[in-house]
Amino acid sequence: MEKTYHVAVVGATGAVGAKMIEMLETSSLPIESVKLLASKRSKGKKLAFKNKLLTVEELVPDSFKGIDIALFSAGGSISKKFAPEAVKRGAVVVDNTSAFRMDPEVPLVVPEVNESALHSHHGIIANPNCSTIQMMVALDPIRQAYGLDRIIVSTYQAVSGAGMSAIKELKEQLQDMLDGKQPEDLTANILPCGSDAKHYPLAFNALPQIDVFSDEDYTYEEWKMVNETKKIMSDNQIKVAATCVRIPVLQGHSESIYIEVKDSSATVRSIQDLLLQAPGVVLQDDPSEQIYPQALNSVNKKETFVGRIRRDLDVNNGFHMWVVSDNLLKGAAWNSVQIAESLHRLGLVRVN
Amino acid sequence: MEKTYHVAVVGATGAVGAKMIEMLETSSLPIESVKLLASKRSKGKKLAFKNKLLTVEELVPDSFKGIDIALFSAGGSISKKFAPEAVKRGAVVVDNTSAFRMDPEVPLVVPEVNESALHSHHGIIANPNCSTIQMMVALDPIRQAYGLDRIIVSTYQAVSGAGMSAIKELKEQLQDMLDGKQPEDLTANILPCGSDAKHYPLAFNALPQIDVFSDEDYTYEEWKMVNETKKIMSDNQIKVAATCVRIPVLQGHSESIYIEVKDSSATVRSIQDLLLQAPGVVLQDDPSEQIYPQALNSVNKKETFVGRIRRDLDVNNGFHMWVVSDNLLKGAAWNSVQIAESLHRLGLVRVN
Repeated sequence: MEKTYHVAVVGATGAVGAKMIEMLETSSLPIESVKLLASKRSKGKKLAFKNKLLTVEELVPDSFKGIDIALFSAGGSISKKFAPEAVKRGAVVVDNTSAFRMDPEVPLVVPEVNESALHSHHGIIANPNCSTIQMMVALDPIRQAYGLDRIIVSTYQAVSGAGMSAIKELKEQLQDMLDGKQPEDLTANILPCGSDAKHYPLAFNALPQIDVFSDEDYTYEEWKMVNETKKIMSDNQIKVAATCVRIPVLQGHSESIYIEVKDSSATVRSIQDLLLQAPGVVLQDDPSEQIYPQALNSVNKKETFVGRIRRDLDVNNGFHMWVVSDNLLKGAAWNSVQIAESLHRLGLVRVN
Repeated sequence: MEKTYHVAVVGATGAVGAKMIEMLETSSLPIESVKLLASKRSKGKKLAFKNKLLTVEELVPDSFKGIDIALFSAGGSISKKFAPEAVKRGAVVVDNTSAFRMDPEVPLVVPEVNESALHSHHGIIANPNCSTIQMMVALDPIRQAYGLDRIIVSTYQAVSGAGMSAIKELKEQLQDMLDGKQPEDLTANILPCGSDAKHYPLAFNALPQIDVFSDEDYTYEEWKMVNETKKIMSDNQIKVAATCVRIPVLQGHSESIYIEVKDSSATVRSIQDLLLQAPGVVLQDDPSEQIYPQALNSVNKKETFVGRIRRDLDVNNGFHMWVVSDNLLKGAAWNSVQIAESLHRLGLVRVN
């Protein structure tokens, strides 16, 4: 008889947690039970899973007794505190926060790109940052075929990446603006970054800050894209620079990406052909029919959409493209559940 | 006695036309009279200029009899047809459409950058594309000091660049979405480009198409940024690539710009120092205080705001920055009126 799993979702009441539950409902993972965990505040709340109502329980170390797989998405500090507790109790953790991503002992996995890294896990697997994941899905087939020397990315990120309260804040600001309020009268308590000192409205705005500022005046979000790319692609030489920007979109991150490949035989057509075959990619690239990826069309889809592929006008090995994916799904919940499916398929749902 | 001017505004009832009237109200240009011109549909409409109500007249060739300066912003086909008529009747035309921008006989002017090009005008001066202007204001001081080898820009453009009907469409779509409508039930008749075949909602979306597609699968808007940059900077060697994207912002274009300078002595600090002194530029660049340009803060300001200046992590001569300006003002109406002011100051309000 096939092994079935007891799965826990940590942060079940959050924007990503809700999507994790959805992804588990249709997952190929053989699930025995699902346990929903959250902070004390959400204890007792009821959420549906496959037409059954499950009661949210308060997260404590012993929540993980009997759990095989724990999906974490409740913030870095929760992961730092509780992921080791889960592992101690025999659960494999797939962590959607930045807590362990750069830990050399922790695989950082996009299944389409580096599933084999899972073999070296010691109980915790990190899910990359949303903006990194979709870029990896789109670029890794190109890297494999032609080598990748350089990436410059500017992001157009949705507010759901900042959680449910940020979604609510944006909607309220927009309603206020539509009702004639002035920008200076808007309420902003969360964006651009809940933990930072100042907050700005996102309604009818574009905020070039996601997460706090860090070294060299890049934001932490931008550093994530740089460092995680190098780790996932196992290439410390690849040049990566990012500008991460929040825009008034609810769901679906878009990215304007410039790459330079190593092999000058690459053409727009050959890259399109590659991406047509690439796992997790949907090519939407027909300018004559105005076909290109759009955030609004990516909502609730698992794939990464790539289009507007065109040659740089001056640099022979340079190409530009537009990459879109649902940040809550491939960028978070789906990639996490996909990792769990990979762990199952590879027989790796065990703590070494 | 100082010469005073009879000024006409063509497209007075449009989004840019309205701002042209505003800019003329506070302009240093000695104005004798203002004539408001538009299509037959808007004839008889009354608009305020300096607390007087002016009546919109229907645009016909003889509208320009006695006019010294005509500001055009009513679409390329109107400019093509009527700008020569205005010149024939002795008016100098400042044209805010793309009709004459690449005409070698027509100066394409950002006063902070290439005001001297006005000396060679033959009656028509072209106002560059909104997204080009703010980039030129920010980059030309750097080009002058260090030389500029390369520009890669991704834009975050406001809907007002597509006119009043596009603003209305976005607001209606947003209200529909806030009221619970599904994306597939939204009405979209204008964006991404009124003259193109398909239309898509912009609410909670990012559309990587501005204007129609053209050569090499770049949009015409992207080509404008490439070609106009070369013309304004008088440099056909400069490498320029653009990805132009419309986002749900009403007013204020943002741009994520990557540059490579020629002189490797450039530093973030030296570039900041340059921009502090640069005409038309406001430096807003203090990550420790979360100070950076924002579209919402640029509204109704004439300046171009620059921030997030940082060194590329791999390329020594490479720098990234974030450039924001009000697309209706510096991107259109203000730059046009500013050109008229320059023409006056240089004694060039005459048709050669």
